[in-house]
Amino acid sequence: MDKLYVIKIGGNIIDNEVKLASFLADFASIEEKKILVHGGGKLATRLAEKLGIEQQLVDGRRITDAETLKIVTMVYAGFINKNIVAVLQANNCNAIGLCGADGDTILAHKRQHPVLDYGFVGDVDAINTNLINNLLEKNIAVVFAPITHDQQGQLLNTNADTIAQEIARSMSDLYNVQLIYSFEKSGVLLDANDDTTVIPEIKPSSYLQLKSKNKIFAGMIPKMDNAFAALKSGVGKVIIGKAENLKGLINGSSGTTIINE
Amino acid sequence: MDKLYVIKIGGNIIDNEVKLASFLADFASIEEKKILVHGGGKLATRLAEKLGIEQQLVDGRRITDAETLKIVTMVYAGFINKNIVAVLQANNCNAIGLCGADGDTILAHKRQHPVLDYGFVGDVDAINTNLINNLLEKNIAVVFAPITHDQQGQLLNTNADTIAQEIARSMSDLYNVQLIYSFEKSGVLLDANDDTTVIPEIKPSSYLQLKSKNKIFAGMIPKMDNAFAALKSGVGKVIIGKAENLKGLINGSSGTTIINE
Repeated sequence: MDKLYVIKIGGNIIDNEVKLASFLADFASIEEKKILVHGGGKLATRLAEKLGIEQQLVDGRRITDAETLKIVTMVYAGFINKNIVAVLQANNCNAIGLCGADGDTILAHKRQHPVLDYGFVGDVDAINTNLINNLLEKNIAVVFAPITHDQQGQLLNTNADTIAQEIARSMSDLYNVQLIYSFEKSGVLLDANDDTTVIPEIKPSSYLQLKSKNKIFAGMIPKMDNAFAALKSGVGKVIIGKAENLKGLINGSSGTTIINE
Repeated sequence: MDKLYVIKIGGNIIDNEVKLASFLADFASIEEKKILVHGGGKLATRLAEKLGIEQQLVDGRRITDAETLKIVTMVYAGFINKNIVAVLQANNCNAIGLCGADGDTILAHKRQHPVLDYGFVGDVDAINTNLINNLLEKNIAVVFAPITHDQQGQLLNTNADTIAQEIARSMSDLYNVQLIYSFEKSGVLLDANDDTTVIPEIKPSSYLQLKSKNKIFAGMIPKMDNAFAALKSGVGKVIIGKAENLKGLINGSSGTTIINE
C-alpha cells in the first residue's frame, strides 16, 4: 500500500506566521500523499474578545454557542484554511481546503451528554473516504478545518485531534497511514519539563511499563490512548513531536514513534 | 453537450436567511450539473464596523486593504460559503465550497491600475476546469466564494459577477452553459422603477435598438455588455432575474434571457 501522511498541526504554530510558513514548506515537500488537519490557534479567541463575545464555560468546560460557532467557522474554515492553501500553492503543492460539510467529507452529530449541553460541538460519525481519495489521487493535498456538519444543515465545531485520528483510521483501508501529531513539544517526554527526554519509540508493552512507573505524565495519557486506538484500527504508525521538526518526524530522527509490537 | 448551470446569487439574498434557504432548496432541486457563485452581502461590512475597521475609499472607489481582505476571507470563504454548503447537504445536494486558491481553481493577479491602488483585489487569469469538471462529474455542486489567489501565497478579493462569467466561459468547452445572474430585480426592465416591465428576451439586434432609444437604463449596461461577451465566448444563454424565482429563470417563465440571434 502507498504511504499517506495525515498530519495535525497544533494551534500555537498557526499563531506564528514565520513558523507556519516554514512548516508549510516542509509539508509541501512531502512527496507522498498527504492530508493536513489544522486547529485554530488564538485567532478565534482574539476575534471573540474584540467583538465582546464572552466564552461560555459550564462546569469549567468550553461551550460552543451560536456566536462562537460563527467565529470558529469564519476563522478556521475561512481565514486560516484559505491562507494555508494559498501558501501551499505558492510552494508548488496543489491543495484544497475543506470543512466536513464540503463533499460531505466528515459527518458528525451534536454531542449528547446526560447533563451538559456543549452547544454546537460535533462528534464524528463517518468519513467520506471516496472523495478524499479521489483528490489525493490527483496529487492534491487535502487541508481540513475542524468544522463538521450533521447533514441537517448544522455546522459543528469538532476537535482537530479527533478529526485527524478518524481520517487516519478510515483511510487505512486504502493506505499505509502515518499519523503525525505535531505540536510544541519534541515528543513524549520522560520529564514533562525537559524537552531533551524524548522517548524515541513506544510499543504497547513499553507503554504499560512506563505507565506503571508513572513515567508518562498525565496530560499525555489521552494522546497515547488515542494513538494506540488508531494503531488497533489499522493505522501504520503514530508519530508525536515538534511541528518545527516535521522533516525529522517523517524520517524518524525526531519525535516519538508509537507502533505495535 | 450536457447542460451546466452557473448561477450567481447577489448579496441581498444572502442577508435574508429565509429567502436564502428557499433559494438553496430551488438550487438543490436542479437535476443538471450546477455551480453556485455567491457574493458577500452586508455581513462583511457589518463585521468590519463592529471591529472598527474603516472602509478605505480612494477617489470614491472601495479599496481592499489587508484588514478588509482578512474580513472578506473569513466571511465569504468561511461563514457564508460553509453555511451554504451545509444547507445544500441538508437538501440532499452534495456540494463542495471552494475559493479560487482551492485546487488552484481560480488564478488571478493583483489589479494593476496606472493611478489607483485597489489593494488586494484580483483580476482573473485562468480557471482550472479540470478539477471543477471532475467534481461535477461526481454530481457534486461546486460553490465558489469570491476570493481568488495569485499562486504566490496571496489571496485576492474578486468580483463575484466576474467569477461567474469567467467560469461560465471556461466551462463552455465542455458544457452547454446557462449563466444565471440572480438578484433583487425581476430582469432587465424597460422602466427601472417598475418591476413589471421585464424584457423577456434580448438579442444583439434588439439590444442595439433598446440602447439607441435609451430604453436600457445605465446601471444595466455593464451587465448586458458582460452577457454578450459571455455569449461570444461560447456560453449558451445568459439569464438575468430575481433570485426568488430561480425555478422560473430556469424554465424560462421569468427573467430576461439574453441569447445570440
